[in-house]
Amino acid sequence: MIIIGEKINATISRVKTIIQERRSAELIELARTQSESGSDYVDVNVGTGVGSREDEIESIQWAVETIQQAVETPLCIDSADPRVLEAGLEARGGKASMINSTKAEEDQLEVIVPLAKHYQALLVGLAMDESGIPKTVDDRVRACGKIAAACERYGVNMGGVLFDPLVIPVSTDVTQGMVTLETIRRVKEAFPGARTVMGLSNVSYGLPERARINAAFLHMAIAAGLDAALVDPMNAELMAAVKTAEALVGKDRHCRKFIRAFRK
Amino acid sequence: MIIIGEKINATISRVKTIIQERRSAELIELARTQSESGSDYVDVNVGTGVGSREDEIESIQWAVETIQQAVETPLCIDSADPRVLEAGLEARGGKASMINSTKAEEDQLEVIVPLAKHYQALLVGLAMDESGIPKTVDDRVRACGKIAAACERYGVNMGGVLFDPLVIPVSTDVTQGMVTLETIRRVKEAFPGARTVMGLSNVSYGLPERARINAAFLHMAIAAGLDAALVDPMNAELMAAVKTAEALVGKDRHCRKFIRAFRK
Repeated sequence: MIIIGEKINATISRVKTIIQERRSAELIELARTQSESGSDYVDVNVGTGVGSREDEIESIQWAVETIQQAVETPLCIDSADPRVLEAGLEARGGKASMINSTKAEEDQLEVIVPLAKHYQALLVGLAMDESGIPKTVDDRVRACGKIAAACERYGVNMGGVLFDPLVIPVSTDVTQGMVTLETIRRVKEAFPGARTVMGLSNVSYGLPERARINAAFLHMAIAAGLDAALVDPMNAELMAAVKTAEALVGKDRHCRKFIRAFRK
Repeated sequence: MIIIGEKINATISRVKTIIQERRSAELIELARTQSESGSDYVDVNVGTGVGSREDEIESIQWAVETIQQAVETPLCIDSADPRVLEAGLEARGGKASMINSTKAEEDQLEVIVPLAKHYQALLVGLAMDESGIPKTVDDRVRACGKIAAACERYGVNMGGVLFDPLVIPVSTDVTQGMVTLETIRRVKEAFPGARTVMGLSNVSYGLPERARINAAFLHMAIAAGLDAALVDPMNAELMAAVKTAEALVGKDRHCRKFIRAFRK
């Protein structure tokens, strides 16, 4: 299981301040603690929602350079703007990176897929197009198909792609949990070699006991074939859910990691 | 989700004493608390492992008659011996019952399937034959096919059958969790109308934090299509896992049951 630490995200107000005021020590601390908690990648999203695109480009350059001076963990460059993605990847100077993300939209694909090729970065592909998140499994798989076609065109292997089936809160539509799980299964059948990735917390939006729901959905998603998750790696319950699920689906030889984690 | 309370089982030493000494009040209490904790069926297994078949027949008659004087919940008559099953069903006097269980073995099928027909009882069919629990999904589905063929022969509808995919501890073979989950999915495709049922606790045998593993596996199994589970209904974590999973797979309209259970 690939764990992507989600805590460096400028939509969180404390992180927004860290970014705006260029507080290097705090940024490094956020990256380091996530790395030490088991993150394989640390996501970096500096979109504060205020300021210009040029501000965001400067911010991603600063953030990437600051973090990688102190922390070896690969980074996941997270933006809706291809120019910000490019600036972040360029700042990596050839170190291992992930791009988060592209939709199945030609305008994005023709810029972002070549970035993945050029920088040899893993690419997160969202199962949605310009008209939003599809309601059905078929339409989500079709969106992934458009991304796969663009990857083929630009020479990016499926082994470098992680498809995100997308998660809609079950409180708004109870059928959507199964749509996400079924999309994971179908995408893995349709695109051999490709992996899947998901952010979790949306699923429980609007309900009590969100941590309980998120952990249960993570169990289900890993059983459906989920390969990577964008999570808070300091959330011990969620990280325990990963270890438990991996033991149950045969991804933990002799259950050794599980036993090591839980034998008091 | 059909909850089958598992606590009246003579392999538990306290229950063995209750059965042997005919302690009616304690037996009724065990049935009542399971019923009040949300059991849709109460399993009754009086096989103490000592004494003759006649003893077990007398015990099941006593247990069934004792429980049903005080508790309305349907009973699941649990024995490896068809004559004990028949005695228990006969004692029910036409009240709703489940038979636990038959294997895919001709000797058993030709006796037990007609019992299900005669007593209009639900029938648990184990995904195994005379040679034991198959290692592969294909062989387990094939075993269920033999049971389905016998049901067809004796006029038992698939709607009255619950197939048990069977669970082997992941500590002995890490691939077996996925075999069980995949069997649930395949059985539901192969035998439309049939349901699935499972005992949980075997999966975590030999590992620490068994409650955590059992709850995680229950989440996964419900996402794979599990309809019924043999559990301890007084285990609050496991019952919470059922409610959480049902909300996530769309079996809880507007998540109402989940919200009612968890809103403090």
